[in-house]
Amino acid sequence: MTGFTNPALADIRAAAARIAMHARVTPVLCSDVLDEIAGARLFFKGEHLQRGGAFKFRGACNAVWSLTDDEARRGVVTHSSGNHGAALALAARTRGIPAHIVVPEGAVAAKLANIERAGGILHRCAPTQAAREEACARVQRETGATLVHPYADARVMAGQGTIALELLQQVPDLDAVITPIGGGGLISGCAIALRALAPGVEVVGAEPAGADDALQSLRRGERVTDIVPHTVCDGLRATIGAPNLALLRELQVDVIAIDDDAVLVAMRLLWAELKQTVEPSSAIVLAALLAQRERFAGRRIGLVLSGGNVDLDAIPFRSSAR
Amino acid sequence: MTGFTNPALADIRAAAARIAMHARVTPVLCSDVLDEIAGARLFFKGEHLQRGGAFKFRGACNAVWSLTDDEARRGVVTHSSGNHGAALALAARTRGIPAHIVVPEGAVAAKLANIERAGGILHRCAPTQAAREEACARVQRETGATLVHPYADARVMAGQGTIALELLQQVPDLDAVITPIGGGGLISGCAIALRALAPGVEVVGAEPAGADDALQSLRRGERVTDIVPHTVCDGLRATIGAPNLALLRELQVDVIAIDDDAVLVAMRLLWAELKQTVEPSSAIVLAALLAQRERFAGRRIGLVLSGGNVDLDAIPFRSSAR
Repeated sequence: MTGFTNPALADIRAAAARIAMHARVTPVLCSDVLDEIAGARLFFKGEHLQRGGAFKFRGACNAVWSLTDDEARRGVVTHSSGNHGAALALAARTRGIPAHIVVPEGAVAAKLANIERAGGILHRCAPTQAAREEACARVQRETGATLVHPYADARVMAGQGTIALELLQQVPDLDAVITPIGGGGLISGCAIALRALAPGVEVVGAEPAGADDALQSLRRGERVTDIVPHTVCDGLRATIGAPNLALLRELQVDVIAIDDDAVLVAMRLLWAELKQTVEPSSAIVLAALLAQRERFAGRRIGLVLSGGNVDLDAIPFRSSAR
Repeated sequence: MTGFTNPALADIRAAAARIAMHARVTPVLCSDVLDEIAGARLFFKGEHLQRGGAFKFRGACNAVWSLTDDEARRGVVTHSSGNHGAALALAARTRGIPAHIVVPEGAVAAKLANIERAGGILHRCAPTQAAREEACARVQRETGATLVHPYADARVMAGQGTIALELLQQVPDLDAVITPIGGGGLISGCAIALRALAPGVEVVGAEPAGADDALQSLRRGERVTDIVPHTVCDGLRATIGAPNLALLRELQVDVIAIDDDAVLVAMRLLWAELKQTVEPSSAIVLAALLAQRERFAGRRIGLVLSGGNVDLDAIPFRSSAR
């Protein structure tokens, strides 16, 4: 963490300007039926409709376009369970530079296909944090590519924070915003923007109970890095980043841990009522809200649907419903 | 058909004003991947995000709010395979009046649940056109309710035509608009608006090959009413209405017939790439475009996604993919 500087609101605004040519302003979606079920007014920020099918394009795009021409020429590299990898490949393509993507074995097929379609160069490794970082370091040595970390990166955090800028413009008078927590890039960027522009808005993170390293880290007062993730939320298996954890504590972000069963119930509700094919890692925000219904009742809640890259041959709620 | 007066552009504009308080302006959705597959610029009008999960709310709402107070008090009645029924129940609730919905046996469970949730009173009948009309007539005699036909009704056509008004405002310079054809209410309203406001835009209807009564009627020069529909597009099984057929001919609407297999391929693409859980009756518009790729190549095409009420326990492309 030494030397890490968090992005400020100005960096998030700069990111918004930098990515405006490339990223989509995603719509906010509503459903009378879900409002009725929740007993609250829900505003879903549709980042699954972002280019590449996930919010990750924002951070990746900001990082790619922050590079000097000389840095850019040597390309970028990252490790990613999928969405960030596809996003970085797509972002690199907007600048015509190579993107090396280290992917762990067992990643979702739909996400790997996205990476290849975007022109990313795949490097496979074992599904551990250590193996990912080692493979990344090797590619860096061999190519001179710049590492764009999926979440412990100020440029990436700033890019993800542009979601909160848009949401505040699209929906007035929010009482709370819920985002998923994996490595913590999304919630870091959003929390910085929200604390600066709308300090009264509660910032809540939804984390899988089977990968609740952020929650445990906050409780123990130190970063817990030895959890073996076990969750259907394949986008939320990463360990919370050190700078991200520090931000969660500093900005008083509340974290709710959610069981996979509740995630799958919420995912089905989003498919049926909001008509959106979101992935489990997105559906967790609705699950968190429904798990604490009384807390959010009667209020106006923003929920970030982070991605929609589902393998349609293995829809998890189908097998559990039968 | 005696005495039937088609709505004019002024009626569609009046409908837009009448329903503005109740209906949603639905978003237009795009996907780089689908554009690439199609070789054209596609603009999907998301009517599955309309209240009730289908475009039908527009026509039903216009009809309900066109009634005098005295008519309204006695309620409304219709027959519907589902989406129009749910829409009429929802529209009736916005005015606080009863809605009687005659539903054929075999209708999709998710659609019946929608009708009941909206407060509609269900009346079941055999799945034939004759049985539907008979049951409707009985309810009319017993209650004095006003019949709101799903498509052969000028108020309903005018309501559906508001989709084209919005689409023309949302997307400049369209070359063609494709909508599904069931009974013909949607395409009638849209064709009237498009011919009046954008006469250069091609108007194309997509009809299931297993229920291609509109296409056959146009070819034979007379209304074909003896087809037994056999298609996965449960919203498109109705027989083309007499006034609707006359309009298709008059306004030179082209009809493309599509096999169910092609519909399911398109549906899967829409779920995977556009991230929208649309029903087969919606997906047929993309299937029609892909069936005639050369014709639409390089052009700007509006496609109306008509509804999203899918039974998630029986996703048709799942069983066919295994």
